[in-house]
Amino acid sequence: MSESEKRVLILMGSDSDLPVMKKTAAVLDEFEVGYTMRVLSVHRAPEEALALASGARAAGYQVVVCGAGMAAHLGGAVAAKTTLPVIGVPLASGALGGLDALYATVQMPPGVPVATVAIGGARNAGVLALQILSLADERIAAALVQFKKSLTEQVLAKDRKVQEELAKA
Amino acid sequence: MSESEKRVLILMGSDSDLPVMKKTAAVLDEFEVGYTMRVLSVHRAPEEALALASGARAAGYQVVVCGAGMAAHLGGAVAAKTTLPVIGVPLASGALGGLDALYATVQMPPGVPVATVAIGGARNAGVLALQILSLADERIAAALVQFKKSLTEQVLAKDRKVQEELAKA
Amino acid sequence: MSESEKRVLILMGSDSDLPVMKKTAAVLDEFEVGYTMRVLSVHRAPEEALALASGARAAGYQVVVCGAGMAAHLGGAVAAKTTLPVIGVPLASGALGGLDALYATVQMPPGVPVATVAIGGARNAGVLALQILSLADERIAAALVQFKKSLTEQVLAKDRKVQEELAKA
Amino acid sequence: MSESEKRVLILMGSDSDLPVMKKTAAVLDEFEVGYTMRVLSVHRAPEEALALASGARAAGYQVVVCGAGMAAHLGGAVAAKTTLPVIGVPLASGALGGLDALYATVQMPPGVPVATVAIGGARNAGVLALQILSLADERIAAALVQFKKSLTEQVLAKDRKVQEELAKA
Amino acid sequence: MSESEKRVLILMGSDSDLPVMKKTAAVLDEFEVGYTMRVLSVHRAPEEALALASGARAAGYQVVVCGAGMAAHLGGAVAAKTTLPVIGVPLASGALGGLDALYATVQMPPGVPVATVAIGGARNAGVLALQILSLADERIAAALVQFKKSLTEQVLAKDRKVQEELAKA
Amino acid sequence: MSESEKRVLILMGSDSDLPVMKKTAAVLDEFEVGYTMRVLSVHRAPEEALALASGARAAGYQVVVCGAGMAAHLGGAVAAKTTLPVIGVPLASGALGGLDALYATVQMPPGVPVATVAIGGARNAGVLALQILSLADERIAAALVQFKKSLTEQVLAKDRKVQEELAKA
Amino acid sequence: MSESEKRVLILMGSDSDLPVMKKTAAVLDEFEVGYTMRVLSVHRAPEEALALASGARAAGYQVVVCGAGMAAHLGGAVAAKTTLPVIGVPLASGALGGLDALYATVQMPPGVPVATVAIGGARNAGVLALQILSLADERIAAALVQFKKSLTEQVLAKDRKVQEELAKA
Amino acid sequence: MSESEKRVLILMGSDSDLPVMKKTAAVLDEFEVGYTMRVLSVHRAPEEALALASGARAAGYQVVVCGAGMAAHLGGAVAAKTTLPVIGVPLASGALGGLDALYATVQMPPGVPVATVAIGGARNAGVLALQILSLADERIAAALVQFKKSLTEQVLAKDRKVQEELAKA
Repeated sequence: MSESEKRVLILMGSDSDLPVMKKTAAVLDEFEVGYTMRVLSVHRAPEEALALASGARAAGYQVVVCGAGMAAHLGGAVAAKTTLPVIGVPLASGALGGLDALYATVQMPPGVPVATVAIGGARNAGVLALQILSLADERIAAALVQFKKSLTEQVLAKDRKVQEELAKA
Repeated sequence: MSESEKRVLILMGSDSDLPVMKKTAAVLDEFEVGYTMRVLSVHRAPEEALALASGARAAGYQVVVCGAGMAAHLGGAVAAKTTLPVIGVPLASGALGGLDALYATVQMPPGVPVATVAIGGARNAGVLALQILSLADERIAAALVQFKKSLTEQVLAKDRKVQEELAKA
Repeated sequence: MSESEKRVLILMGSDSDLPVMKKTAAVLDEFEVGYTMRVLSVHRAPEEALALASGARAAGYQVVVCGAGMAAHLGGAVAAKTTLPVIGVPLASGALGGLDALYATVQMPPGVPVATVAIGGARNAGVLALQILSLADERIAAALVQFKKSLTEQVLAKDRKVQEELAKA
Repeated sequence: MSESEKRVLILMGSDSDLPVMKKTAAVLDEFEVGYTMRVLSVHRAPEEALALASGARAAGYQVVVCGAGMAAHLGGAVAAKTTLPVIGVPLASGALGGLDALYATVQMPPGVPVATVAIGGARNAGVLALQILSLADERIAAALVQFKKSLTEQVLAKDRKVQEELAKA
Repeated sequence: MSESEKRVLILMGSDSDLPVMKKTAAVLDEFEVGYTMRVLSVHRAPEEALALASGARAAGYQVVVCGAGMAAHLGGAVAAKTTLPVIGVPLASGALGGLDALYATVQMPPGVPVATVAIGGARNAGVLALQILSLADERIAAALVQFKKSLTEQVLAKDRKVQEELAKA
Repeated sequence: MSESEKRVLILMGSDSDLPVMKKTAAVLDEFEVGYTMRVLSVHRAPEEALALASGARAAGYQVVVCGAGMAAHLGGAVAAKTTLPVIGVPLASGALGGLDALYATVQMPPGVPVATVAIGGARNAGVLALQILSLADERIAAALVQFKKSLTEQVLAKDRKVQEELAKA
Repeated sequence: MSESEKRVLILMGSDSDLPVMKKTAAVLDEFEVGYTMRVLSVHRAPEEALALASGARAAGYQVVVCGAGMAAHLGGAVAAKTTLPVIGVPLASGALGGLDALYATVQMPPGVPVATVAIGGARNAGVLALQILSLADERIAAALVQFKKSLTEQVLAKDRKVQEELAKA
Repeated sequence: MSESEKRVLILMGSDSDLPVMKKTAAVLDEFEVGYTMRVLSVHRAPEEALALASGARAAGYQVVVCGAGMAAHLGGAVAAKTTLPVIGVPLASGALGGLDALYATVQMPPGVPVATVAIGGARNAGVLALQILSLADERIAAALVQFKKSLTEQVLAKDRKVQEELAKA
């Protein structure tokens, strides 16, 4: 995939966030949507983070996903520097179990929203990015319809399996 | 504006939510983006709410904004029935001051995200909708750049005003 | 037991909830009351879940028990579609340890109650279902009196055992 | 209405709870279901409260509704002394805004459930009581179907009204 | 020790609370103060619990210590039936980690206090009981002065040890 | 009343706490028990506060009641300097509504308990002090029995009044 | 006072924060320490805010005080761009009453501390700044000793006044 | 290093806090700044703790760092007795996971601030101490600039490593 085809910019505040944030990448891979993953801290490398945010739209990205824990400023700082939709993933780390990251991500002031998903909800950040991209991409739109069907089918299959197990017992 | 030009569907669980949810409409008005506002409860009129959600994409809507309080299921229920991006606005009502609505909106299971903004953040829901629409709409994209500039100018103007006042004092 | 004798419908949002929700089934088994257990997600299989809820009364069910975690909408969605009493069991999963599920289950708007039990309180959901059924079922009413006595006896037996152990020490 | 026709026992811990707890009575009145309202504190008049609870089933009551604030023990104490279904209404009073009452009502140990509704949810306690009574009472069952329809109609009427207002504006 | 010398009544809601509540007993043993330990649930054996509470003063007890988790009603229920000082120990069990027990123990209504110690603070419940007993018992009063000195000495010894370790490193 | 008859020392961290802490005094007045009220901050006048605490037992006091808000250290600091039972009243002030004061008062380390009552529970602090004093004071013990009876009578009177009002309506 | 004598930089995210943040200025005025007050939002005017932070040390400032509400990133963003000590004042605004601002200010990652004071604690931010400046400024150090004495005297005066009032009553 | 060169006084409430509080020491070691570590409890050895605090400035210390858990009074008690800047580290211990320690440390009353860092943020306490010392110490000031650069370099190195790993995969 060429750089120009990379449509989602996935940022995380620390390399320790990689195992969770790979779930965003995984769902984008399933939909064959290109992305870039970067470790960039708004507190430890603020200029690099903000430069990346400022240039994201011009670089061809359409959605930015930011995963961060504790006083999770990454999503808000990126949203301050781009007009792209920014999705925030609050991560559970430290003593407050992600509640600090949730508040720091979602409670943004007027004018600078961060689209927040569940604590640790990196996979849903990818799904939300796809829903956004689907507005101007028929292939993704069609794939999301299939995805939704498969969610239903998985639940129904689990339902049948549980029914069968209980019938045997 | 014709029906076909309405691009954002704004839902709220109760007509008492209207004063807050009008802030979503107001920012869309500023950007001359069409929308529909509906009062539809997933608990009291579930079929009507779900029918609207199911048909939203075919009806030409591109983003759904859902405002609800307490056990705020509206965003999640709509997200279950559409592949459009769904933005949730947790509303402060009742004894828990919106914390219940925040948790019930943001903590969605894998596969069905709701893009959550701050408690009472209806204006930001509109801004986020515009950022999403801007990906395929140059006019909105350009207007958002101006909007961001005006946010900066407003803050700088307030800064100057405070400086002047303090200088006099 | 024939289908027509099944009086309690036990729903859960995911098959991973089965180990907890089997406690509801276990207490119904102790009282020889029939039930059906189903895995049905209001977010991933909304139509199937709502169809089951809508038809529950006609199918002969008298109580619905719904176990779900995180933004736990299952109880509320079912309550929206039936006039049967709906019991909600908030389940602990994810970073907020069940507090999200508690708020999302209990904080229902006027007109659509969900009878909420403790986080993870699946056994008590079964006991509550039995108390409800007992109003028109003398056998269950009598069995509940015995059940209450046995609770007392168990505590008194534990009390005696602790007394004896301490006396020896 | 004769004493024997009183089917719901409404208890509250203090006469200051009366304005909220009258909402339980109001919905029962709408359905023409008899009830008794009593002020009885498990902490200040424990014997009277427990005697009432112990005798409730024999006195012909079928559901007990208990409203209490702060360390809200009333529901649990009543549930300890009856096999009837007990509905708990956590009330907002004091510095913790009802969160204390919610936890003290809902987090009951195995064997002794309290069917908890929202903080201040006295009207829903009445609706839940009616749903329970409806299992053996065709009149109430039919009335609940009408009630559910009217909830839907009210929401749809509000929706139309909001639509009209917005169209004029 | 004869029954008449038993001055502290230690109650707990479940035998699973015994390992924590033994810490209350341990500190009383250190001070050679007699006590009785009982497992008695206000929800599962209410009459026995309340009878014990009602008769505690006449039986010669001077302080009651109550340890309970979740919707921890034990302390409040005992306080309702005795004029003795009642000490409550909120215990951490279940999904809310003892916060439910803390609120349910400490937030008592006017007229019926429960002297609450830290979550899991069973040892401190014993120390508080001793402080209460010391008002009319010179031996305990003198022993508490020694106890306080030993607390200081232990801390100072730990301080010296840490100093020495750090000096070596 | 002579100084030597003053048995309860009531401390508060600020004179703004006086209206709440007067409730402790009021209940002691009802029982004709002497007390001293002092405004003494452990953060702003630590030496005076600690000197008072150190000397409290020798001065003839038997119980110390400490009311404080926010990072409420008063109770703990006093408990560090006396072997008398110390009762802590967490006060609601500032943005956290008393939750900070509750945690700072109740979560004491092993060896130094503070007997904590409800947020704002100054009246109960007085009742608890009386229960403690009653162990060696027959007059107070007898008065507490009457007090408990009057609590019951008040509730029963309110119950009758509510019954009568409802009967008329 | 010349620019070069301004030693404390006081930043706030919105001009609505001015009434609270003036308390920081007031205490600096009492100590005759120069400061600059600026309204600068890290979300709405990020470049200006960060430029000010980057240049603060070279401009002669020695401490930066940052007041912000909701997802309060200001303190952290400034701390990312300066090696000066940064004091954060979480402000109560919005539905969560300042708890969001507290978490977003205090829970900073390793390497980038923000010295956090109480919610709304703007006066203490000024006192803390003075304590920091006092390390190399004998005049401030001496004034702080007087300040501490006056705190004590004020409390003792209030104590005497309360004693007198109570003696009269 | 001679005693007179020790500039930071590190206090902790218990020797069990040593593993966390050594992180404060470690960062001071990296900057070759002298310190003293002491275990001193304000609740168990109040006089020793307060004497140390009172004499800290005269002994040549410039910053005091206090780590404590639960009802964490250490920072506040020290701040009451010194005009030096006091940094508080809330420690996670017990059932509330450090939230109690955070509130008890940060919510100080006017006049007596404690500069609070994250729960468990002992390393940041050291960094903050260094920032304070840097105001009058060019060597530390220069080293902090290098430290900040190394933070950035570490993040950028991690970013490159993640990029490379992902490129290989």
